Amino acid sequence: MRDFLPEDVRRREHVIRIVKRVYERYGYEPLETPAAENLETLLGKYGDEGNQLIFKILKRGEHEASGQADLALRYDLTVPLARVIAHHQSKLPRLFKRYQIQPVWRADRPARGRFREFYQCDVDFLGSTSPVVEAELCAAVSDVLQELGFTDFKIRINHRELLTSLLNAVGVAEPLHGSALVAVDKLDKIGHDGVRDELLTRGVANDAATKLMEVTARKPEEGAVGIVFDEAGQRAWENIVAILNLAGGSAVGQHLQWDLTLARGLSYYTGAIMEINVPDLAGSLGGGGRYDNLVGMFLDQSIPACGFSLGLERILVVMGERGMFPSSLATAPADVMVAVFDSKDMPNAMRVAAGLRGAGLRVLVYPDADKIGKQIKYADSRAIPFVAILGSDEIANGTLTVKHLAAKTQQTYQQGSAGAEIFKELTQRG
Amino acid sequence: MRDFLPEDVRRREHVIRIVKRVYERYGYEPLETPAAENLETLLGKYGDEGNQLIFKILKRGEHEASGQADLALRYDLTVPLARVIAHHQSKLPRLFKRYQIQPVWRADRPARGRFREFYQCDVDFLGSTSPVVEAELCAAVSDVLQELGFTDFKIRINHRELLTSLLNAVGVAEPLHGSALVAVDKLDKIGHDGVRDELLTRGVANDAATKLMEVTARKPEEGAVGIVFDEAGQRAWENIVAILNLAGGSAVGQHLQWDLTLARGLSYYTGAIMEINVPDLAGSLGGGGRYDNLVGMFLDQSIPACGFSLGLERILVVMGERGMFPSSLATAPADVMVAVFDSKDMPNAMRVAAGLRGAGLRVLVYPDADKIGKQIKYADSRAIPFVAILGSDEIANGTLTVKHLAAKTQQTYQQGSAGAEIFKELTQRG
Repeated sequence: MRDFLPEDVRRREHVIRIVKRVYERYGYEPLETPAAENLETLLGKYGDEGNQLIFKILKRGEHEASGQADLALRYDLTVPLARVIAHHQSKLPRLFKRYQIQPVWRADRPARGRFREFYQCDVDFLGSTSPVVEAELCAAVSDVLQELGFTDFKIRINHRELLTSLLNAVGVAEPLHGSALVAVDKLDKIGHDGVRDELLTRGVANDAATKLMEVTARKPEEGAVGIVFDEAGQRAWENIVAILNLAGGSAVGQHLQWDLTLARGLSYYTGAIMEINVPDLAGSLGGGGRYDNLVGMFLDQSIPACGFSLGLERILVVMGERGMFPSSLATAPADVMVAVFDSKDMPNAMRVAAGLRGAGLRVLVYPDADKIGKQIKYADSRAIPFVAILGSDEIANGTLTVKHLAAKTQQTYQQGSAGAEIFKELTQRG
Repeated sequence: MRDFLPEDVRRREHVIRIVKRVYERYGYEPLETPAAENLETLLGKYGDEGNQLIFKILKRGEHEASGQADLALRYDLTVPLARVIAHHQSKLPRLFKRYQIQPVWRADRPARGRFREFYQCDVDFLGSTSPVVEAELCAAVSDVLQELGFTDFKIRINHRELLTSLLNAVGVAEPLHGSALVAVDKLDKIGHDGVRDELLTRGVANDAATKLMEVTARKPEEGAVGIVFDEAGQRAWENIVAILNLAGGSAVGQHLQWDLTLARGLSYYTGAIMEINVPDLAGSLGGGGRYDNLVGMFLDQSIPACGFSLGLERILVVMGERGMFPSSLATAPADVMVAVFDSKDMPNAMRVAAGLRGAGLRVLVYPDADKIGKQIKYADSRAIPFVAILGSDEIANGTLTVKHLAAKTQQTYQQGSAGAEIFKELTQRG
């Protein structure tokens, strides 16, 4: 878990601002949930590996000594969403489009772009099974990435029912389907041979593993040629085609492609699954899918749902390495620093600073009556462009001497108009 | 701990936006720290009552069964700041003005405006002992409250050394000073008699308690008349006068007053202490003070520091009860909803929606081809002002029929210009 110093926070907020703006444009509404959920809300939702990565919170007071946990830090934003839908159903619209940008915690081994505390930017649509839902989610995350400056991302899409149908077709026994998908999902990380070995370790028959790996080795454009899907697989295929068709008309179309090898690790997906990749990051920038049965685990009613999650930290890592942040983000802490010669003039400095702030400037008052050279040097070291000096002459005349440090120029203004003048110069210099 | 539905989040973000804007104007820079700190970082910083309210996180993996905790959720933003200063000292400026708006967690009994997860809006200045620091902090939080619409708040200020001097003057034994201040700090909550009883329970001599309560019963304007302060008390008094004098020239002046009975519960304060109150809330909206020795607990060097913390939830409670939120916050999820008669027209609907979004509108695509009346009714129920209808005529002609629901009017536009037209109508109608 990491600290974010001012420059880091500004970069994070730049990305979050764009994510929010795009999601709002699609009609998604903001939601926030607590960091801690009841432990039983989270257990059993993420598979065995997930369960072990949950941070658990010790009971308080007299029960602390028991060493037992009753709460846990949230592991993702999807399960808390499902709980919210169940708890607040009467207050929520029938079609609920929500976004949520908050940290989640996993006791995972840290790696490049992987941290124990990280932000997810989730966007979900509840209440409809229409393929418009998937198409709009893909369009929204595609718009986010494009507005951040990404052009080379791919959104791969597949379908859990299509995978089931494929596993049936190649002869993987049904009880092994979930386990086989966990192995196939590691194709990016452990490669073709690694997956094949893991399939065998997980009990998949040799013949089935061979056929499955034959399919996953195909190029995307070869697709599922020659595989005979069952009825559910056929419906899944039509769903994928409908989503691709819907997305085709908007900007996301060129980034979206079907990939029969995409599996996704999480166990709650029931329909379409999606994942975003860029060439220079081994993991994904984000992923998602349809999970029509999850809300039903908290409610005696099933509510269709589909969502997408962008990983803020991974986006930041790639943007940082590629130099994608606008230079305007490297801002000085203030536009003007007010300096005084004598500490008895401090009340005047505070009054002048208030006036400058009123003109829309960000103003720092140097707190001590250090030598004026030391004060100016400090402003320079912080890249503050202007220093406003208040000496006895200025105070007597109601003026302000304003130095522009980079240009090495100075100008004297009436105190009442100094703010507007500096503001004008600041915006002209850019 | 609570969920925040869209309307709640919009209110929270409204307040946070103003807090950030004002703090940035004063030259404070953003900082963020992880939710979890090492347990030993937090222990021993908040007094015994505080220690018991810390949420502790169980060790992971093989150590989980030990029932021991190694991490804890942060209890405030001040101790994490002190740790950050110590860890990142070389990367931080000599004078560090930072703000931080993040949740903290306390296993406290919930009450009005008091929750187990709540946001603090902290603003701190490190590196100077100048009274300008306190005066600017008070001015900044005062600006925040005024921009939020508060006019009736009071910022009370006192000084820990002045209290020490007072306790000496009335004859409270020195080892009981800390304990006596905890009691005096409860004056708002348990009243005069309650504090007197608690002083006696805490071992303060009857005579000293009587004298102390005599002083605390005075009206603010009577102040410390007749009390003979020692030298440290005299210096503290001069510090208070300097702060009041500095603040006098700016807008905060009229809200700031010295209050000899203000004590503040936290043990790390060393100098000036401040607290904000409004008449209709028993607790405080925020508080702060100088803590020159806290950073030194993490570093073999002492760094002067002073800060102020605003309680987001309490501000929200009062603003909600007083109806202080701008009506523009009760926003519909979108400006326009796109409706289609036939699901085969969905690709067209998505293309049209993309065009409308490009014109700056927030657009929702109704995902299913329900009866058009049902679709319009849905838009109405969500207070979405415009519905754009795409029927076979519109598709054939490249047009869009746009209904304004409240005005019960409709207009047909070319698809290419519809976005600009709706945007114009939206801004004109307000």
